[in-house]
Amino acid sequence: MATIRYFKGDVFHTPSDGKLEYIEEALIQVDDAGIITKVTAKTDQGYESELAKASENLQALSAGQCFLPGFVDLHVHAPQWPQAGIALDEPLNVWLDECTFPLEAKYADPAFAKAVYQDLVAQLLARGTTTVLYFATIHLEASLQLAKTCAALGQRGLVGKVVMDDPQANPAFYRDASTEEALADTERFIQEVQAIAKTAPQGVYPVVTPRFVPSCTDKGLAGLGALAEKYDVHVQTHCSEGQWEHDFVQERFGKTDTEVLQDFGLLREKAVMAHGNFISPADGARFVESGAAVAHCPISNAYFANGVIPIKRLKEQGVTIGLGTDISGGFSPNLYDNIKQAVMSSRMLEDGVDVTLPQNTRGVADSRISVIDAFSLATKGGGEALKLPVGVIKEGYAFDVQVIDTRQKENPLPDFGVFTSPEARLQKILYLATMQNIRQVWVQGKKVHEKRGE
Amino acid sequence: MATIRYFKGDVFHTPSDGKLEYIEEALIQVDDAGIITKVTAKTDQGYESELAKASENLQALSAGQCFLPGFVDLHVHAPQWPQAGIALDEPLNVWLDECTFPLEAKYADPAFAKAVYQDLVAQLLARGTTTVLYFATIHLEASLQLAKTCAALGQRGLVGKVVMDDPQANPAFYRDASTEEALADTERFIQEVQAIAKTAPQGVYPVVTPRFVPSCTDKGLAGLGALAEKYDVHVQTHCSEGQWEHDFVQERFGKTDTEVLQDFGLLREKAVMAHGNFISPADGARFVESGAAVAHCPISNAYFANGVIPIKRLKEQGVTIGLGTDISGGFSPNLYDNIKQAVMSSRMLEDGVDVTLPQNTRGVADSRISVIDAFSLATKGGGEALKLPVGVIKEGYAFDVQVIDTRQKENPLPDFGVFTSPEARLQKILYLATMQNIRQVWVQGKKVHEKRGE
Ligand SMILES: [Zn+2]
Ligand SMILES: [Zn+2]
Repeated sequence: MATIRYFKGDVFHTPSDGKLEYIEEALIQVDDAGIITKVTAKTDQGYESELAKASENLQALSAGQCFLPGFVDLHVHAPQWPQAGIALDEPLNVWLDECTFPLEAKYADPAFAKAVYQDLVAQLLARGTTTVLYFATIHLEASLQLAKTCAALGQRGLVGKVVMDDPQANPAFYRDASTEEALADTERFIQEVQAIAKTAPQGVYPVVTPRFVPSCTDKGLAGLGALAEKYDVHVQTHCSEGQWEHDFVQERFGKTDTEVLQDFGLLREKAVMAHGNFISPADGARFVESGAAVAHCPISNAYFANGVIPIKRLKEQGVTIGLGTDISGGFSPNLYDNIKQAVMSSRMLEDGVDVTLPQNTRGVADSRISVIDAFSLATKGGGEALKLPVGVIKEGYAFDVQVIDTRQKENPLPDFGVFTSPEARLQKILYLATMQNIRQVWVQGKKVHEKRGE
Repeated sequence: MATIRYFKGDVFHTPSDGKLEYIEEALIQVDDAGIITKVTAKTDQGYESELAKASENLQALSAGQCFLPGFVDLHVHAPQWPQAGIALDEPLNVWLDECTFPLEAKYADPAFAKAVYQDLVAQLLARGTTTVLYFATIHLEASLQLAKTCAALGQRGLVGKVVMDDPQANPAFYRDASTEEALADTERFIQEVQAIAKTAPQGVYPVVTPRFVPSCTDKGLAGLGALAEKYDVHVQTHCSEGQWEHDFVQERFGKTDTEVLQDFGLLREKAVMAHGNFISPADGARFVESGAAVAHCPISNAYFANGVIPIKRLKEQGVTIGLGTDISGGFSPNLYDNIKQAVMSSRMLEDGVDVTLPQNTRGVADSRISVIDAFSLATKGGGEALKLPVGVIKEGYAFDVQVIDTRQKENPLPDFGVFTSPEARLQKILYLATMQNIRQVWVQGKKVHEKRGE
């Protein structure tokens, strides 16, 4: 007979975009498969009788603790984890050619891959990130190692073997041997990850992953589009990230990056396009129509995007958007940091930056988003982008949660009796919580991280 | 006979602005007063014989540990600590009138003040901040409580009783009773803090603190200028923070904020002006000439400044600049967060934000600063701003340091054997270290914080 587990504690989440729902002492029922079957509020009829049924299967949070949905990180270059924080003051070409590509080339060694990936996946879980969309490298074996690591550590991982098959565009020491091999490896990767997935209840998924249009041949892009269609798998790539990329694609094809990806069959329902800073309203309409999503990476964008994505305009247009850390274009493995930066960057877009210009000409009016909006991007937005039932704590969704402790001794978040509303409590958590406040992390009903010590 | 203590470990600091000096296994000698008397590098003649003299007075760091200078936070509203992270999505007037001023008014109760200040000072120390320039509130007793708390917990605190004496400009529930009382309380505050200072070897200092020009009468500002002169104490206020303030002062006086502060005798050598986002090159020249400094608060500025301060231009002009968290206009009590944001904001100024504008018109060329520049602001810049011998680890300076541990188990900063240069090591620390990596904090040769646990 199936056992139902019960979890009791205050819940903060955004079942509607950007709208906080607070459920005091919610009673959450979770089935054997790790799926939430019922959430009862204290004020609901039957709360007491449900609670009575719970008995020894009940896990109740302590005072000062609460549940947040696990975070969804839509853009991580897993092999770049050793480079996080390094050389960000260098020009992009130096950063890529002298640091990133030589580093990614090292993953020809599966042992190196295993060491880095085990550390990274554990570090992301410890920061409350339960679902991650990963770029790996061009190497089949190392990329499979990343999927296996997610499976083993209990993270919901979506993993892509990267394709960069154009010999004109990529260094000889780090590119696919040929277009044919890139496509054959991608197909084998899809099949092998689908086999690994059978051992991972939380799900691991293969992702078709052209690095970006400038690094791929037309034939490579078309072949990847066909594979995405054949296997109905997720797709990820970069789209209109910076001025250079945006202009380069326009020159090569006479079309926007978004249009080109659509032409090659890559702008699909289960596609997540990293950055999207320069997408026009017409491009936005293509995202809406296809169901493809944008991974907003605000920290990385401060370094490499040459501008701020108009999140609010795109959301109003109906584009699905989530958040990404973009390790290591973004230095931080922490989505809390990206939630904050998403808010700050949106305000800097609204207000402008150049103080020598008149106030009414230096920014873009009505661009700001709230911290609750940004929290929504990191949770519900991420789940929607991946078309997975995660990011909200309600019936039918996976039990993917962070247990936050605001009385943790090293980083308490005291309110001194002043700002005690649920909204203020959540703001304090989003702005001031550190890894230290993340007491436990659960994915699909399984505890995958517990903080050491008090 | 005086005892010399010896500390041995790798040192990272910026004795010249923005230039990293790395000293491998530096031997640091510290006298009874907590002052560094000598720093010997491994390659210096006599290193071995100095080391032999150290014997039982030697404290050597472990592998993976290093010394950074303690941070100098040039702008903290101590009473706003309970508000950190709260209501930042509200318009400035709501944030001030409905949250900040009612909160600050609570410090009429010294017991409330004591509870908040003890928590705040401990939290700042735990984040490596060894010297802080504080705004308190209008209340004499609570403001003295903050100075006493710094003295007791071993932090180098510079504390101001806030003056806001204009009945037209401030709410009835929170303003000085009269200009005369504001000035008399300030003078008494100066004298009492100077008495408290006798018990604090690390130094606590009184600071003349008009909130900002718009909240003070002409008579109040002139009286405060005279007190600063009479006692030769530090001065702090806000200067040209946002568009509204900048324009308001221009309308009231027909002069810039900087000129007005100079006219009232407040732009002095030991003055630190918070924000300074809108200061012109001519204002900058007044800062250089007077020796006054700017406290750059990049996180706060993303919310309330309406633009980005051109740090690089001001540094080139010779203006002394340090960093401030601006709790609670800035949500973070952590200067590491502000170092990162200073870099990001400078890049967003350089690149611009509005992606619909042509690339060459949307930003301000040559505005970016490096993460080492920002580290320099948080250490050496802060010491220079306050005219105190702190922020650099060399002879004649106070032994104010953070002991960083990059092998701490909860947040290790592994390099996987890839980026191992001293510069890369420091970048990794600045971008990825958390409170967890701050193992010890020392102020004036006294250990004032030690991380619990492993
Ligand atoms: Zn990327
Ligand atoms: Zn301030």
